[in-house]
Amino acid sequence: MRHIHTKTRVLLAFAASLAIISPSPARAADGEDYSVKPTTPAGQTTQLSSSAPSMEMPEIKYELGKQPLKQHPGGASNEATALNFPISKGLAGVSMFLKPGALRELHWHANAAEWAYVINGHCRITIIDPEGHKEIKDFGPGDVWYFPRGHGHSIQGIGPEECHFILVFDSGYFSEFATFSASDWIAQTPSEVLAKNFGMSASAFKDFPKKEVYISQGPVPTALPSDPPPDSDNPPPLTHKFSLGGKIPTVTAGGSMTLVDQKQFPISTTMSGAILKMKPYAMRQLHWHPNADEWQYYIKGRARMTVFGSQGRKITREFGPGDVGYVPMGYGHYIETVGNEECEMLAVFNSGTYQEISLSEWLSSTPKQVLETNFGVAPAIIDSIRKGAGLFSKPTGPVSIPNE
Amino acid sequence: MRHIHTKTRVLLAFAASLAIISPSPARAADGEDYSVKPTTPAGQTTQLSSSAPSMEMPEIKYELGKQPLKQHPGGASNEATALNFPISKGLAGVSMFLKPGALRELHWHANAAEWAYVINGHCRITIIDPEGHKEIKDFGPGDVWYFPRGHGHSIQGIGPEECHFILVFDSGYFSEFATFSASDWIAQTPSEVLAKNFGMSASAFKDFPKKEVYISQGPVPTALPSDPPPDSDNPPPLTHKFSLGGKIPTVTAGGSMTLVDQKQFPISTTMSGAILKMKPYAMRQLHWHPNADEWQYYIKGRARMTVFGSQGRKITREFGPGDVGYVPMGYGHYIETVGNEECEMLAVFNSGTYQEISLSEWLSSTPKQVLETNFGVAPAIIDSIRKGAGLFSKPTGPVSIPNE
Amino acid sequence: MRHIHTKTRVLLAFAASLAIISPSPARAADGEDYSVKPTTPAGQTTQLSSSAPSMEMPEIKYELGKQPLKQHPGGASNEATALNFPISKGLAGVSMFLKPGALRELHWHANAAEWAYVINGHCRITIIDPEGHKEIKDFGPGDVWYFPRGHGHSIQGIGPEECHFILVFDSGYFSEFATFSASDWIAQTPSEVLAKNFGMSASAFKDFPKKEVYISQGPVPTALPSDPPPDSDNPPPLTHKFSLGGKIPTVTAGGSMTLVDQKQFPISTTMSGAILKMKPYAMRQLHWHPNADEWQYYIKGRARMTVFGSQGRKITREFGPGDVGYVPMGYGHYIETVGNEECEMLAVFNSGTYQEISLSEWLSSTPKQVLETNFGVAPAIIDSIRKGAGLFSKPTGPVSIPNE
Repeated sequence: MRHIHTKTRVLLAFAASLAIISPSPARAADGEDYSVKPTTPAGQTTQLSSSAPSMEMPEIKYELGKQPLKQHPGGASNEATALNFPISKGLAGVSMFLKPGALRELHWHANAAEWAYVINGHCRITIIDPEGHKEIKDFGPGDVWYFPRGHGHSIQGIGPEECHFILVFDSGYFSEFATFSASDWIAQTPSEVLAKNFGMSASAFKDFPKKEVYISQGPVPTALPSDPPPDSDNPPPLTHKFSLGGKIPTVTAGGSMTLVDQKQFPISTTMSGAILKMKPYAMRQLHWHPNADEWQYYIKGRARMTVFGSQGRKITREFGPGDVGYVPMGYGHYIETVGNEECEMLAVFNSGTYQEISLSEWLSSTPKQVLETNFGVAPAIIDSIRKGAGLFSKPTGPVSIPNE
Repeated sequence: MRHIHTKTRVLLAFAASLAIISPSPARAADGEDYSVKPTTPAGQTTQLSSSAPSMEMPEIKYELGKQPLKQHPGGASNEATALNFPISKGLAGVSMFLKPGALRELHWHANAAEWAYVINGHCRITIIDPEGHKEIKDFGPGDVWYFPRGHGHSIQGIGPEECHFILVFDSGYFSEFATFSASDWIAQTPSEVLAKNFGMSASAFKDFPKKEVYISQGPVPTALPSDPPPDSDNPPPLTHKFSLGGKIPTVTAGGSMTLVDQKQFPISTTMSGAILKMKPYAMRQLHWHPNADEWQYYIKGRARMTVFGSQGRKITREFGPGDVGYVPMGYGHYIETVGNEECEMLAVFNSGTYQEISLSEWLSSTPKQVLETNFGVAPAIIDSIRKGAGLFSKPTGPVSIPNE
Repeated sequence: MRHIHTKTRVLLAFAASLAIISPSPARAADGEDYSVKPTTPAGQTTQLSSSAPSMEMPEIKYELGKQPLKQHPGGASNEATALNFPISKGLAGVSMFLKPGALRELHWHANAAEWAYVINGHCRITIIDPEGHKEIKDFGPGDVWYFPRGHGHSIQGIGPEECHFILVFDSGYFSEFATFSASDWIAQTPSEVLAKNFGMSASAFKDFPKKEVYISQGPVPTALPSDPPPDSDNPPPLTHKFSLGGKIPTVTAGGSMTLVDQKQFPISTTMSGAILKMKPYAMRQLHWHPNADEWQYYIKGRARMTVFGSQGRKITREFGPGDVGYVPMGYGHYIETVGNEECEMLAVFNSGTYQEISLSEWLSSTPKQVLETNFGVAPAIIDSIRKGAGLFSKPTGPVSIPNE
């Protein structure tokens, strides 16, 4: 047993160093055999069977769209968090639908900021900050919001169609016991205390909800100009809204990318995001992000992503609408379009500054002599490889390549 | 067993993600049953008996004043740390008494900054920084000091009465194996090494203490102007002293609050604090702090605090002089005065920037239509609720309400 | 068992709070006795045998130079990480040798920045950043480089002799599953994908390495001016090179220290370093670093370091060429030269700002009255002790003391 314990200790020290440790006591039939399986930040399971540490790649795909929706009057949602998608320690997400008038009630997140992207429909947000500034804004497809950690907010569908948006949080554990709702708080507070707090009679609180509302169906609110809020003279210094859809994308033969980080959207200091559109048979080239994890939501079309985890480790998964992908900080990856359809994907990062390094640009800027020694191949091949560049590879295969 | 292990793994992953994991192997009589109880950063105990994660609220009260005092010549102290008060991961505290002339010896804290408030009496501090600046200052009731992490300092009672002060640290684990004393270091160092270090003979060190002094009784030091330190020409760029008692409080009918953060006291980059005085039958209104935990020390009078932890969870405790309270970041809370006496409380936060959001201000600045849909109550009630505002609720009950 | 479990929980909460927990299940002969030994960030082993927490000091020495070298064509290396040297959670290191022309291939570190010091020989580095800037520079003895976390780089020996350098990382876990090599990534990627990525034919990739190269032997590259890289018009705003050997050291009778932090070398925001040269029979005086761990590599001569860990704990070890030492943040320490030879040591810190506080300067700037009360010794001794000062103590013992 002794050498196993030693290995266990080494591996646990390793896992612990990454602030992720998940001892799972497993008992053999004889009741005597215990093993401990730590997971890394990326969720890899440690193998104790070999003498050298060897870790499997974590699962990078979660079929969020296929999970049952939590149904509420007027709305529905489901979520991918570190509890159901273990790799996603640094970012988590929610897919939410609100019918016209339906309100995701007043709430805040104790441990995470919220970055959101509207896919369909329209909604109105209200947000307050600790200095008492408030903002009330309408959002449509392509719009992004960012709410700093702990700031109270609400979201309401304003029609005409159902509103669908994706919420992304900069903690994989934003959900259970970290999301606080106004109705729940009021329900848990004695009416005498509420009376004192609001300078009202206790009986005024008898009709308030007795438990968390979460989403409630109401009338579609009137247009903003005809219902100016009483404190509308106290806007925040930095707006919570950015029209990502209105930004000119970076376009290449293989696809386009539209990016927003704190340089364009100053309030979003802890997160950034992008919409990627990839042509059929094109590819998002090999690259990595040195400063952030990446959380992906596939909107349209199909794609296949391969994530490289060093030490000969890799994992490939195919994604379609509603699927969530995840790439830990520093892990290499590329995404190939699958089928004849354009693929559209939302990518969100847990840093306010977007950074990437692409393999082709790296090799292009590296001296020939270094590459020749590194790879041991013919100089002509090195010459060719150093000409690679670009965000997306051109479409290849059955579709014709557009004239550049 | 298998499903238990699965749940265990999920919960441990959850707890681990929060960088707080406390497996406590409990063994049933048959020697076969193991369970694992992780705690969250807020110290909630995980229940494994139901299929869904469900966490009890952590204990929010510690009767510091009732704990035995560690007695030393001239002084005494006791402490609330994460070891005896598990919720207090982000902040810990010490209550210390020094008779005139008694010295809390030269020491430093390897992992925490120190924020202090003098309740009674007077003391003198010495502090050095890594750039060689030093400060020697006298403190009285209402004064605050802040010492950055790792900086060497001492505290000495200067009379005429015993000095009582509260030390607060920005780590729940500042104490054991993280507080370093000069006498302990010298006692552990061979006299030949000390001789070399100070350019003295080894025999000069024979009378030094053989173990940690902690507190020692000496004469009351002379007044500062008559004993200028030799290097008094090298003051720090930022002072370590702030006279909180000298600041004009924010006064309402229900009470007053006097606050200091790094805006007024620039050296205190990691902590802030306040003195709250609440009138009998008044209430500190429902609010939360989006950026910090709160560590409380009750000085006078009695109060009842309720902390709301989301998901229908809450806990209420009554506090009196010497009791410590704790509110994790983002948790809603309110504090009601109990009895006929004014309640005075010290609140310290682990952020250099003070932030709060109050429920009443949030609702006041939220459009009526949103509140009507959120709570489903009559418009007249919504109108009333939106008029609430203020730090403290007015005193109600048997006492007369003072004329505002 | 119950009281043991309670203690276990307390100690685990303590260890967990420090984000370091290393449960090591140990089994007694009867198969019934389990204990859990957490380690602190400094790696101390917790003792469960006494009722009060009592922690042994962690091991502070690792004989890196005596470990087997991982051999590659043209080069070799070994490493000290938290896996083989448990105290080293905050910093880890590698000793690497490259023959002329040997290339440590293109790679990046997903979770750590790299700070390096060249001991012997010359090498050339290439480095790229996320903005596409690149730098290609030659290094010789005494030169330092800093590569931010995740940035792609290579290192090549350029002769005439073998190059020996020390790499230091700001995570104790930089190595396994966090170091990514270009050849490994290419080997793991299908040739069709590579073809698409680089706009080449798939057959062009048939001769690329089938697994990680790590180090490969190539020709010595030509001198830099005669081989300007194609993108040499895009230099980074901050250089990755600093000539520590070219800086004028701080010299005292007992030794010299040459230091670089981000004030002189702005890109090195997360690390700093120094070369210390200590005369025979001299001593680096008692001091601590309030803001960083210290990772040491002994280059020449011999020395004895004592680390003080509070609560009466200390550990002393002797170091020679190739040995690694470690001092956790805030821990007091001093280093005595052993033998007749000068001792040369590299010290690297995990903060971009170098800070230290020395015991002698602290006592010198503390009022006499405080010291008299603190230590209870004669005023004449206090007078003497307050005259101590300086980085190094003068050489004493069999060697003559040089005239200052």
